[in-house]
Amino acid sequence: MERLKPRTLSGFMELLPAPQMQMERIMEIIRSSYALYGFTPLDTPLIESSEVLLAKGGGETEKQIYRFSKGDSDLSLRFDLTVPLAKYVALHYAELSFPFRRYQIGKVYRGERAQRGRFREFYQADIDVIGDEKLDITNDAEIPAIIYTVFSRLGLKRFQIRINNRKILNGFYAMLGLTEKAGDIMRTVDKLEKIGPDLVRAILTDDLGIADAQADEILQFIAIRGGNAQVLAALEAFRGRNEVFDEGLGELATVAGYLGSFGVPESNFAVDLTIARGLDYYTGTVYETTLLDHPEIGSVCSGGRYDNLAEYYTDRQLPGVGISIGLTRLFYVLGEQGMLNPDVPTAPTDALILPMTQDLAPAIALATALRAQGIRTQLYTEQKKFKSKMNYADKLCVPYVLFLGEDEISEGVVACKNMRTGEQVKLAPAEAVETIRAAIAEKAACPPIRE
Amino acid sequence: MERLKPRTLSGFMELLPAPQMQMERIMEIIRSSYALYGFTPLDTPLIESSEVLLAKGGGETEKQIYRFSKGDSDLSLRFDLTVPLAKYVALHYAELSFPFRRYQIGKVYRGERAQRGRFREFYQADIDVIGDEKLDITNDAEIPAIIYTVFSRLGLKRFQIRINNRKILNGFYAMLGLTEKAGDIMRTVDKLEKIGPDLVRAILTDDLGIADAQADEILQFIAIRGGNAQVLAALEAFRGRNEVFDEGLGELATVAGYLGSFGVPESNFAVDLTIARGLDYYTGTVYETTLLDHPEIGSVCSGGRYDNLAEYYTDRQLPGVGISIGLTRLFYVLGEQGMLNPDVPTAPTDALILPMTQDLAPAIALATALRAQGIRTQLYTEQKKFKSKMNYADKLCVPYVLFLGEDEISEGVVACKNMRTGEQVKLAPAEAVETIRAAIAEKAACPPIRE
Repeated sequence: MERLKPRTLSGFMELLPAPQMQMERIMEIIRSSYALYGFTPLDTPLIESSEVLLAKGGGETEKQIYRFSKGDSDLSLRFDLTVPLAKYVALHYAELSFPFRRYQIGKVYRGERAQRGRFREFYQADIDVIGDEKLDITNDAEIPAIIYTVFSRLGLKRFQIRINNRKILNGFYAMLGLTEKAGDIMRTVDKLEKIGPDLVRAILTDDLGIADAQADEILQFIAIRGGNAQVLAALEAFRGRNEVFDEGLGELATVAGYLGSFGVPESNFAVDLTIARGLDYYTGTVYETTLLDHPEIGSVCSGGRYDNLAEYYTDRQLPGVGISIGLTRLFYVLGEQGMLNPDVPTAPTDALILPMTQDLAPAIALATALRAQGIRTQLYTEQKKFKSKMNYADKLCVPYVLFLGEDEISEGVVACKNMRTGEQVKLAPAEAVETIRAAIAEKAACPPIRE
Repeated sequence: MERLKPRTLSGFMELLPAPQMQMERIMEIIRSSYALYGFTPLDTPLIESSEVLLAKGGGETEKQIYRFSKGDSDLSLRFDLTVPLAKYVALHYAELSFPFRRYQIGKVYRGERAQRGRFREFYQADIDVIGDEKLDITNDAEIPAIIYTVFSRLGLKRFQIRINNRKILNGFYAMLGLTEKAGDIMRTVDKLEKIGPDLVRAILTDDLGIADAQADEILQFIAIRGGNAQVLAALEAFRGRNEVFDEGLGELATVAGYLGSFGVPESNFAVDLTIARGLDYYTGTVYETTLLDHPEIGSVCSGGRYDNLAEYYTDRQLPGVGISIGLTRLFYVLGEQGMLNPDVPTAPTDALILPMTQDLAPAIALATALRAQGIRTQLYTEQKKFKSKMNYADKLCVPYVLFLGEDEISEGVVACKNMRTGEQVKLAPAEAVETIRAAIAEKAACPPIRE
């Protein structure tokens, strides 16, 4: 038979078993953290009608869509989890209770140019809180707490959640009489970290035609720095000159003010007036999250407040606030940076049983007993040399190998070898369970990321 | 703005939050059960190169494939998890340890005719054990134990795992000199339950041209019934007449013989000579699982032993044994039959905090404290009437609502209302945690399926 060379498409992550276990661990921490804040899991189709998915239309994204026909249907793969959420909420509005809080961890598709570290299939891990007509600002204040919980549990300490409020920016530009140019200005200002203040100023004056004096004010404004109290105090000096600005400042002060009660340390949080998010979509609070020692990675968790989730599908005003973690890229970058913790257990089993008798019934009964106690157990019954069986256990990083020969069976014990220390002891099955369980519990506390 | 009517494609399951929670519970039980037996999780792309995915080519399946172009690439969505596994094992052979045990729970795509209860996007939940050149028969014996664990944990009691061995069938037909017709005969015999013995006999004689005497022998053979010991004893009468038959009988006896040690009760297990599985793919042990009170559902978990997983990609002989649960269809059918347990917790949160003060800091601090103790907690901070807040808790089936007013704050307590009993008591936060935790633990033991 002619063989076909097996391959995986470029831009599609396919992990070996050990890194897959690390990925699973990270996903499980994100999932349980989201659930802790009262978000419900959703699972929507990967394929939607193109008409529905592309209702908003246009833009860079549309070119990247995986779009195809099947029978008479014009179909597309989802390119984010937000549009499917908008569809879901509009479609099932009558059956949902608001505020509707959902998380979704799922794959999305973008046919980007293939490039190292760029993925065409990647996981997003999103939460959104959707209100019916209104949504209280406290929801915005809770988001940084969720980000903090997720990243702390993953094992990170040196990260910073940066927040801003689009109304402050919009209000500020209105004060300067630059409302019509506010979008362009913010997109420019958003590049401050990448291109520096001189180039930002040049774009403002030369490309956007902003007067020198106003460009200076803009640069002064976005240069406001310091602790959160300092920044908020500096902003107070502008209060009373524009309604939108005042509203945004009130919101930002509320969000910042509640963060202590939400358990977010001051050191993991910064009011940062340079954050605007490139999208026109956001209308209030905006978030970015950066790793302090790896600014080159950019934001690992971003989002914000929007006025209207589902305007393409319904007349109902559905404001929301949400964030997204680009999980596949994050995992890739952590791997590149050597930040995936090698101590995270990656073995598919806690105990590998090597039967040393012809009749396998006692070894099988032992496996059954261990599994009944919640110990992940594998029976190794292949006809191989002893050395190759131990190699197998080694390669898989199995923590405990259990030998069961005639002697052990007649004594009612099992020979239990700790593969890390090399120590081997005879234990009653119940003792073996306790030994293995203690080792599992210790390992379970091991965070998947190390700084 | 013109609105577009939101819709979800037909044949694509999209669940409301409460049934989604039931689905998640079922998936989690399957996942943890698979893991208990030492299987490692895999996650492969949903899109593969058409050339790779369709290497085997032809057949009914190919017409159902979602196939499309993107740039120069001819791409297809996976239609099962077995072909991607074959590709994975062939591609990563050098980096894997054998036997390689993996589970995968993922969506697959088949453009079937839209029909009630038929899905175009559906979950499969698969396990496979892949050997390098050889794979011990004990692996085949372990599979029914895994099926038993999964379905028992889901809450089912009245199910039966039926097993057979293709070698017994092949050997039997060889005895009759009908080897060349064995495939056709088995596909016919496979329909016995659906069409009855008379029609089976008619197809054998009229369509396949089998002599009356041989057709009678075939019907007698597949009519062998009784307890497992009886069936195996009846088969012993044929021993010595055909090598393949003897080998198959030996394997079947080994599998049946170890099931007690694997913890599978005799009542959940039957040797059934009518089981052949429609596919030519299987070469040894074959499995089907039926719900005794719902035979109309057909098999809910099927699989078997195969000689060569990846023959289209590699010269290496990679025998394996595996099973698949068609999860989306199973969930749908359970819903139709009223078998989804309504007592499974579906609330997105364990506790809903209703702050009764202007300053939300104490309520937020309470939420933070509960979350630190692992209690899923939601703060309700919308400006609504009290009644509508309680309606919200009711609709979401939230088990506990916590009120925090000036009195409670000054007393250092929280008013904790059990929404099921209506009982409301003032508790210290630590007591509230214990109360809620006990309720969670009780609910956590609740199986997602009821018979």
